[in-house]
Amino acid sequence: MAKKKTTGPGAPESVAAQTPWGGRFEEVPDEIMQQFGASLPFDQRLCDEDIFGSLAHAAMLASQGILTEDEFQLIEDGLQSIQVDIDEGVFAWDITDEDVHMAIESALVGRIGEVGKKLHTGRSRNDQVATDLRLAVKAATEILVILIDGLCAVLEQRAAEHKDVIMPGYTHMQKAQPVLLADHLGAYVAMLQRDALRMELAYDAADMNVLGSGALAGTSHPIDRDLTTELLGFREVGENTLDGVSDRDFVLDLLYACSVCQMHLSRLSEELILWSTEEFGFVTFSDATSTGSSIMPQKKNPDFAELIRGKTGRVYGNLLALLTTMKGLPLAYNKDMQEDKEPFFDSVDTVLDSLNVMLSIMESITFHTDIMRKAAGGGFMVATDLADYLVGKGMAFRDAHEVVGKLVLKCEREGKTLQQLGAKDYAKICDLFEPDVLDWVDIEKSVARRHRDA
Amino acid sequence: MAKKKTTGPGAPESVAAQTPWGGRFEEVPDEIMQQFGASLPFDQRLCDEDIFGSLAHAAMLASQGILTEDEFQLIEDGLQSIQVDIDEGVFAWDITDEDVHMAIESALVGRIGEVGKKLHTGRSRNDQVATDLRLAVKAATEILVILIDGLCAVLEQRAAEHKDVIMPGYTHMQKAQPVLLADHLGAYVAMLQRDALRMELAYDAADMNVLGSGALAGTSHPIDRDLTTELLGFREVGENTLDGVSDRDFVLDLLYACSVCQMHLSRLSEELILWSTEEFGFVTFSDATSTGSSIMPQKKNPDFAELIRGKTGRVYGNLLALLTTMKGLPLAYNKDMQEDKEPFFDSVDTVLDSLNVMLSIMESITFHTDIMRKAAGGGFMVATDLADYLVGKGMAFRDAHEVVGKLVLKCEREGKTLQQLGAKDYAKICDLFEPDVLDWVDIEKSVARRHRDA
Amino acid sequence: MAKKKTTGPGAPESVAAQTPWGGRFEEVPDEIMQQFGASLPFDQRLCDEDIFGSLAHAAMLASQGILTEDEFQLIEDGLQSIQVDIDEGVFAWDITDEDVHMAIESALVGRIGEVGKKLHTGRSRNDQVATDLRLAVKAATEILVILIDGLCAVLEQRAAEHKDVIMPGYTHMQKAQPVLLADHLGAYVAMLQRDALRMELAYDAADMNVLGSGALAGTSHPIDRDLTTELLGFREVGENTLDGVSDRDFVLDLLYACSVCQMHLSRLSEELILWSTEEFGFVTFSDATSTGSSIMPQKKNPDFAELIRGKTGRVYGNLLALLTTMKGLPLAYNKDMQEDKEPFFDSVDTVLDSLNVMLSIMESITFHTDIMRKAAGGGFMVATDLADYLVGKGMAFRDAHEVVGKLVLKCEREGKTLQQLGAKDYAKICDLFEPDVLDWVDIEKSVARRHRDA
Amino acid sequence: MAKKKTTGPGAPESVAAQTPWGGRFEEVPDEIMQQFGASLPFDQRLCDEDIFGSLAHAAMLASQGILTEDEFQLIEDGLQSIQVDIDEGVFAWDITDEDVHMAIESALVGRIGEVGKKLHTGRSRNDQVATDLRLAVKAATEILVILIDGLCAVLEQRAAEHKDVIMPGYTHMQKAQPVLLADHLGAYVAMLQRDALRMELAYDAADMNVLGSGALAGTSHPIDRDLTTELLGFREVGENTLDGVSDRDFVLDLLYACSVCQMHLSRLSEELILWSTEEFGFVTFSDATSTGSSIMPQKKNPDFAELIRGKTGRVYGNLLALLTTMKGLPLAYNKDMQEDKEPFFDSVDTVLDSLNVMLSIMESITFHTDIMRKAAGGGFMVATDLADYLVGKGMAFRDAHEVVGKLVLKCEREGKTLQQLGAKDYAKICDLFEPDVLDWVDIEKSVARRHRDA
Repeated sequence: MAKKKTTGPGAPESVAAQTPWGGRFEEVPDEIMQQFGASLPFDQRLCDEDIFGSLAHAAMLASQGILTEDEFQLIEDGLQSIQVDIDEGVFAWDITDEDVHMAIESALVGRIGEVGKKLHTGRSRNDQVATDLRLAVKAATEILVILIDGLCAVLEQRAAEHKDVIMPGYTHMQKAQPVLLADHLGAYVAMLQRDALRMELAYDAADMNVLGSGALAGTSHPIDRDLTTELLGFREVGENTLDGVSDRDFVLDLLYACSVCQMHLSRLSEELILWSTEEFGFVTFSDATSTGSSIMPQKKNPDFAELIRGKTGRVYGNLLALLTTMKGLPLAYNKDMQEDKEPFFDSVDTVLDSLNVMLSIMESITFHTDIMRKAAGGGFMVATDLADYLVGKGMAFRDAHEVVGKLVLKCEREGKTLQQLGAKDYAKICDLFEPDVLDWVDIEKSVARRHRDA
Repeated sequence: MAKKKTTGPGAPESVAAQTPWGGRFEEVPDEIMQQFGASLPFDQRLCDEDIFGSLAHAAMLASQGILTEDEFQLIEDGLQSIQVDIDEGVFAWDITDEDVHMAIESALVGRIGEVGKKLHTGRSRNDQVATDLRLAVKAATEILVILIDGLCAVLEQRAAEHKDVIMPGYTHMQKAQPVLLADHLGAYVAMLQRDALRMELAYDAADMNVLGSGALAGTSHPIDRDLTTELLGFREVGENTLDGVSDRDFVLDLLYACSVCQMHLSRLSEELILWSTEEFGFVTFSDATSTGSSIMPQKKNPDFAELIRGKTGRVYGNLLALLTTMKGLPLAYNKDMQEDKEPFFDSVDTVLDSLNVMLSIMESITFHTDIMRKAAGGGFMVATDLADYLVGKGMAFRDAHEVVGKLVLKCEREGKTLQQLGAKDYAKICDLFEPDVLDWVDIEKSVARRHRDA
Repeated sequence: MAKKKTTGPGAPESVAAQTPWGGRFEEVPDEIMQQFGASLPFDQRLCDEDIFGSLAHAAMLASQGILTEDEFQLIEDGLQSIQVDIDEGVFAWDITDEDVHMAIESALVGRIGEVGKKLHTGRSRNDQVATDLRLAVKAATEILVILIDGLCAVLEQRAAEHKDVIMPGYTHMQKAQPVLLADHLGAYVAMLQRDALRMELAYDAADMNVLGSGALAGTSHPIDRDLTTELLGFREVGENTLDGVSDRDFVLDLLYACSVCQMHLSRLSEELILWSTEEFGFVTFSDATSTGSSIMPQKKNPDFAELIRGKTGRVYGNLLALLTTMKGLPLAYNKDMQEDKEPFFDSVDTVLDSLNVMLSIMESITFHTDIMRKAAGGGFMVATDLADYLVGKGMAFRDAHEVVGKLVLKCEREGKTLQQLGAKDYAKICDLFEPDVLDWVDIEKSVARRHRDA
Repeated sequence: MAKKKTTGPGAPESVAAQTPWGGRFEEVPDEIMQQFGASLPFDQRLCDEDIFGSLAHAAMLASQGILTEDEFQLIEDGLQSIQVDIDEGVFAWDITDEDVHMAIESALVGRIGEVGKKLHTGRSRNDQVATDLRLAVKAATEILVILIDGLCAVLEQRAAEHKDVIMPGYTHMQKAQPVLLADHLGAYVAMLQRDALRMELAYDAADMNVLGSGALAGTSHPIDRDLTTELLGFREVGENTLDGVSDRDFVLDLLYACSVCQMHLSRLSEELILWSTEEFGFVTFSDATSTGSSIMPQKKNPDFAELIRGKTGRVYGNLLALLTTMKGLPLAYNKDMQEDKEPFFDSVDTVLDSLNVMLSIMESITFHTDIMRKAAGGGFMVATDLADYLVGKGMAFRDAHEVVGKLVLKCEREGKTLQQLGAKDYAKICDLFEPDVLDWVDIEKSVARRHRDA
């Protein structure tokens, strides 16, 4: 690296001062430390969960006599007023509060005075943040499942609209056998249904109450964990308190479910991008779900499908990030685990957006069914059917392949399709061919025959 | 890179000719292509599944009249004789067979003649390999769960042996509060139980019969998929045939379950390595599960725990590998998917071995409970209890913290522990302290108090 | 997932409406598409590079007569006024502009009118964004190298301050041989120097002018690429235009360099965390670089070192994200590549912050050299020296090991150190031991002897 | 997981006993431990490096008088006889030797007696393995560079053969502008040249002599590190001994270089797979580099290109694996680092094979230049040229786009191409169009015009 000075017009004196990192570079150390340690910029998204958890904790403390009814009422009113301010966008987040928990607790003490300090009795930030995160994972999976279901519904509807449309099926990107467009779309429904299941497993993994784990060793206060479990809607109590504060498996489960879901979406995106090329011509994206060119009005760039495909990287990256962070961490809580939130938010946002966008794409895409059908007629795609025909007549599988291979070669030399041969042409090649062979080279009948079971 | 010649004694003329890649470099192209495409070197591990699947397929063909009873009997006998040869290690694998399926089919035709060619009727290598892999994933998870259960049993037994042992609990690797060794070990049991559940979910994901999907579009032969489902012990039929040949989610599910399990083992390994240092001194590895030094007889290197920790990398790598391979693949089958097997075998082998080794370690490790107990006495680890005491007397949580902070500071200056102060010393600091405070600084009582719920 | 309604106090009617994704879920499709496609929220950090690049492009167009001098002057003034507004924080970013390029071009046309539209003559957003990114990568590496050098300087200074301090050297986390603290710190200097080199290689990779590549195929305008190369301070022209718009290797190179650097920092962090435990006691973090406990004033949590270690995950994740995104992309430009910026910004930010924070930590950390020295005296750490002594007297290496092993065992049984034995004790064990052996068990002399070469 | 018994014909009694893990499951613990710890099965590939390193070490010991000339001669002869046996494939590797170093040392002692034990004087397995690995990385990069150069040569030759062939250039997989096939191929040459550079940087990173670092702290023997540096062909001595045994950056550098190279190959593979579809029809793979179908003789599956693309996963996985393993490791040597070898061998093998296979593919692929040229004529691919034409006449860029957009739309409605319009048709649309506009819609001239600079 020759540290050559840039010399262009308007060239800055110091590149450092004129870059995305210019400001950062001149910060005083204390600010850097504070920013480095603070999670508030990202964990404030957990504010609803944090308040919800505090309300339940306070109600339990009151039920156990650790708070008086009056104290509880003050705390509840204070928290609800904070919630209102947050909902209305007027809550003043203070960057000097390290995290969302401190921000809300500080605000509470500011509003209701000393009694606010009693809210933290019998809990620790370690179990508090784990509880918040579990609530958020549960909420995220619920929305993800709704969107997955929505995309499945659209795919099924488009399949129903085109239930008899035949298209080429591919292996190795080479035309292999004719299939139904409905079945091709149905393959994605099958994938997405597994994704929904995986999301639900992440929900179940998160569905355990760890509030009461304290810093790592529980608490000596006479708390009632069954009550907070009920109030917060958790399925059960997490008994082991060390595990309670050091477990992030439920986040990993969601990051993994997101990774596979995005992978499926990347496959669908890839196909749509291919199908929308001039070469394939199977689909046209709607204007709203593609990007035009000012100079080539007929051109439509599949930007959105490309972005879905490209974002697979970040979703995988988030999974690997948290797996890496958790590797080799001793019990119980370590600050490293603060790194759980950003990948979680980012993967959920990305998959939600991708599902939403794919839903819009699939709702509005035009299938050129005539082109698909025509493409399914070429490429000798019923060759396998012919071989099956011969096997049905008693010929061994491998031998049948050989006979059909010769047939195809003959057609190719003569510039004919298998459909253009007559019954006699077939009989000349092999006397097992009888007139009903013509049914077997009919594309529609070929597809129908293989759908007997379905 | 200065391509400087090596000049040492015995220096080879050409480095290339004297390296791990020397041979490879001189291969003729055709051999390279063959080796590059062949999966037999690794997929021969699927031979049992392949034969099992073929037996079921043949039985179904016979049941449907596609094979005669005699043909079926010949095929069954042939396949069973191959199985016997494989079990006895005398089966001659031929590298020119591209994969395990061709190797077994070739051998079958060699043994029983032309009728062997009929076995492939109504199936394709695409659905065949997917079926084999599903059987193998199911088998792998069963063994993994057995070993996880075994390790849990050992951990629980060791916990039971030491049920009253107190040790320091750590957060941020700093002593925080006294905990029970049994609870510390119990946290790993909780992790492993989740791992077993994740393995079972991978089992469920694999537990679907895709035989009959054909190359991608089913088959025109009148097959009975319910029968092969029953014979092969699958839970249900996979209806969508394009999905049947292009889905590898079930392998990913297992690679993910392996990743989290190995991550848990890496955490336990890290702790054992720390605990076995001269500085901590909490445990001593058995001779069989550590490596000695010829020169320092008392030294024991925790090689095996280190390897478990280190192997986390490869297990994560395998997950990423298959996720990457699957990204953006169009339907239906693509050769890329041949890359599913090696990460699968490697992750399962690694986790199985790691579980086995950890089981040996935990069975034979010595806990120095006296050192643990002594370590739990230092570091003012009951400070939180004292604060809880004051909160119980009505003081606000944050204020109680301040009082105890002063107490600890005072002790530190005077070189005393909190246990060495008398009731009067406490009363002098804050008049809420009554004589029962002495119960709250007692380590055993501290731990017991926090276990009221459990 | 039992979709059980939450029933706690203040439980929201709909979880969806009360979560981090509540808002997102209710967006209208068009907004989702716009947000999904827009890069402005993150690529506005490239504004300085974008303006710098546009200035050079305009100057070249003027030099070639494609713009008149007056047009150029208008454009230059307009761009500089935009730069001023951005620097002063008063530039109005409009979210409906898709990206930073459109935002600045729109503003330019708004300020100087139609002539602003001429700026884009002979370029495309495809080469424009690649140019911006190359300038940003170069700037980032320059700052990274400055910070790495700064951290090296601190490490070297601390080493110089403690140049004779002896501490235990560890292998397998077991005490192995005494080493100098200066050498231990020096190992990290060696790592960081390699990191600086890797950063410089990323700089070199970025240091090529791709402006003029157009959308993918260059331009028919008579542009002068040598001039923009000079004005922008690039080393050379990138000749292949398809490569020019589709290459992101230089970003990967930086993400990789960041990954290895953060890995090195994670190792140093791990050691500092261990050394700051009560058990090791080798260091104390300064107040500013650790987090206190209100209740345990003497306790210092190494939060910042833990965060550096934990953030290794995100830096690895960013590398894998972009590698995944680039896999299998056909030429030339695909929208997927928009995913290059966020990992780039995030990794640079993370490594810069981590270097800064580590610099503060190392500047202010206290080394407890007495404890280190004392720890180096235990554990029979000169056993290897004794064996070397015997080898020097002619005994075979493996035999010498055996003799010393016996010696150590004897000491351990008798509760003695090797330093407590006299010359006669040694002679009794093996007659090759002469009185000068006492020099070989002296820790200081042991270290000095092994530093003869350095 | 319903642990339903499999019930098919020939169903095994116990699945466990009939699976890829059957054997492993029944191993006795000691064998498991031994296998788990042993690296011989994979590190024996380092045998040449190990012997080469030992020869240099022995020569140095002799030069320093630590070995007598006779001793050295015995050792040299012994090592060379072992090398001969290995080269001839008759060396008996003994699995009970833990690693390649012990295997060779044991054999040496077996052949030359006690003097063989002196070879290990002044070194440790920690610096020995690091030295071996550095030699192997250097050798690997040399071969990789040769193959990369070879592939570049083939690409350049094919480009030269087709130097005037025009094909469509794509962005977003949509036809954008006509380009030269030679430039398209040239983009890959540019990528591969960067790959070669990255390989050379890995070579440089490995090119440092760490022999003499000992276990971690050097040695008290009077060794001459400059001499081994010269004998082994290293560039320089690695001064810091702790870094010497704990650094694996040079392996990471190679794994990273392999990742980017394989990513490039995946892009080329993706394009070849697309181009070989019936829909594109741009290329036909040779028989040797594709796989036929017995039933569809004309069908060629691009299996090898698919495998190259699919193997990108494992190469990324190997990089992540070692990065993960190294994260957070304290100094100096830890057994985790044994996990460096398998990803190294696997990535080098994979990239070498992929380069070799791609070389065969590119040497023998047929370009259908007529189809390419024809495809470049459609899609209004000179629209950008027309806009440039108008800009050249003084129209603002964005306005020119609008005019051309209208033209294209008109053509599309009338079923004409831009080439089919006459000078008068153009003039009717916009009076800036003069007769020379016909030169600008000529595909050949369009491409030539944009190649003025190159």
